[in-house]
Amino acid sequence: MSIGLRRVIEPAGVLPQAAWKLDADPRIAPDEVRIRVQRLNLDAASYRQLAQKHAGDGAAVRAEVLEIVGTRGKMHNPVTGSGGMLIGVVDEVGPESPLAVKPGDRVATLVSLTLTPLRITDGLAGWDGLSEQVPAEGTAILFGRSVVGVLPDDLAPELALAVYDVCGAPALTDRVVRANRAATVAVLGGAGKSGSLTLAAARRAGARTKAVVLNEAERDALREAGLADEIAIADARDPVAVSEAVGEPADVTVVCVDVPGCEHGAILATAAGGTVIFFSMATSFPAAALGAEGLAADVTMLVGNGFVPGHADFAVDLLRQVPAVRALFEARIAAD
Amino acid sequence: MSIGLRRVIEPAGVLPQAAWKLDADPRIAPDEVRIRVQRLNLDAASYRQLAQKHAGDGAAVRAEVLEIVGTRGKMHNPVTGSGGMLIGVVDEVGPESPLAVKPGDRVATLVSLTLTPLRITDGLAGWDGLSEQVPAEGTAILFGRSVVGVLPDDLAPELALAVYDVCGAPALTDRVVRANRAATVAVLGGAGKSGSLTLAAARRAGARTKAVVLNEAERDALREAGLADEIAIADARDPVAVSEAVGEPADVTVVCVDVPGCEHGAILATAAGGTVIFFSMATSFPAAALGAEGLAADVTMLVGNGFVPGHADFAVDLLRQVPAVRALFEARIAAD
Repeated sequence: MSIGLRRVIEPAGVLPQAAWKLDADPRIAPDEVRIRVQRLNLDAASYRQLAQKHAGDGAAVRAEVLEIVGTRGKMHNPVTGSGGMLIGVVDEVGPESPLAVKPGDRVATLVSLTLTPLRITDGLAGWDGLSEQVPAEGTAILFGRSVVGVLPDDLAPELALAVYDVCGAPALTDRVVRANRAATVAVLGGAGKSGSLTLAAARRAGARTKAVVLNEAERDALREAGLADEIAIADARDPVAVSEAVGEPADVTVVCVDVPGCEHGAILATAAGGTVIFFSMATSFPAAALGAEGLAADVTMLVGNGFVPGHADFAVDLLRQVPAVRALFEARIAAD
Repeated sequence: MSIGLRRVIEPAGVLPQAAWKLDADPRIAPDEVRIRVQRLNLDAASYRQLAQKHAGDGAAVRAEVLEIVGTRGKMHNPVTGSGGMLIGVVDEVGPESPLAVKPGDRVATLVSLTLTPLRITDGLAGWDGLSEQVPAEGTAILFGRSVVGVLPDDLAPELALAVYDVCGAPALTDRVVRANRAATVAVLGGAGKSGSLTLAAARRAGARTKAVVLNEAERDALREAGLADEIAIADARDPVAVSEAVGEPADVTVVCVDVPGCEHGAILATAAGGTVIFFSMATSFPAAALGAEGLAADVTMLVGNGFVPGHADFAVDLLRQVPAVRALFEARIAAD
């Protein structure tokens, strides 16, 4: 089943995610699917890097996104290494595609934009460059081996996309909490999108939850939502502050903060024999590996895999069952 | 128990591993230990980067190592983010140190050089810059919370250091294979130091082993050693080649190749529900996370933690029990 090797222009032999440049030709192979793009959702770390680089100049951010897509054939931020997702309408399905979609379906891609051949045709004219949510026209390609979700009827597309974007985190947290019968789960960045879903998943899996948030506004919002049993304020990049905020070390710590430098706080906050799940694309592999070694910390550290079977339905189900999560998501989207 | 915060000069508030600059003053605090340095063992990824940058000019490599240590107060390669280890003799033990060492003990530090305050006093005069093994005079500091191993009497110091350097890999592999009752283990880079120990550990834990090596010389050496049930040649950076070399996907795949770009081959080579353990400091977190997602690969991905309780004794025990591993190590050291 195709993993998109034919779309790799350079360097030869790597997979599309690792490629510098993809062929975004809208003509599809027999096992591919073409999507008419409606909206991109940039990865938080990627958007933040671009916004900071251009000091909030939206036109400059937009120009750089167009340049990246034009040069690389995909929205793959070369600095952060991350991408995002998109929504659109299925345009054409190759006769050999195994994906369960048909023309006219409104879908979200559940694989990263870093491996999705993408062509933008409207110059992103409908985007001011000031938000991760990017109205866009163009085409995207899905390979045979891919993941795609048909948008639920009962959720606004922006809401579904925001949920799908982080749906790996609650599903993997559920699996880890149940497999380890974890009694306590700490979530760094608990007030964010992946953080709030992760808190809800951890609680439903039977764990007591502790959230670490950045400031009083986040604390108040999360307290009102009632998603965490305990809430503390700390800068996730300050390991000692995180450790003190969590208090008694957690059985499982989940990092949902999209800034560099959160590895050591997460390790310090985790009990011996516990597990750290890194869900931030800003995670540094050496910082995690060498940090745990340097602290003589016997913790299992997981690379947050964005794919767990059934993850999209799992997250949408959580959102439907826990109104507070939905309210947090809707507030975040409205604020964007 | 001290984690070395008092040694951090900048930026304030981070742990020593994350610090740009440490205070390497040889005067110790009550819970610290000072070591008289005899030899550094640079991390393979770090040494390779330096050697390539300077095109094999040993004097230039030596000058850069001296500059890094002088500037940062530790041997922390700013490009690779990795360090290495050292051996030396315990010089002074603070009255409050919990470490089980006494003055005169010949020891290896089992925490990374990236967090070890280090001062070089001989200008590395005894090193030609052409090997990872660096004879050196100077002082190093261990914090209260640290890991250190007294060198075994029956092993040459270079051999013990080389084993300690990679001792996390076999210990974690043993744990993962037993916990998952893994039937097959694939090791990328099976002919190297961590790779050969990992193969031996996987077999002792009950798994059938497959090694992927770079060329015929490595294949022949490994075949003679008899450490793997199957051996195949492939470039670990070529995902399709790795997948074909491994054949039937493995329950556990261990990456022991210290070059960038091995994430996708490891993921493709692993069975659904299996585990990938990344033991290379050249691993890219986003490439692993997004690659698995893009391949819809339901695999557990572990950051190879350099600390597992008892890891040093475990690896030395393997070396003693499996003469072929010892022979491979001694041949590698002789070739350096």
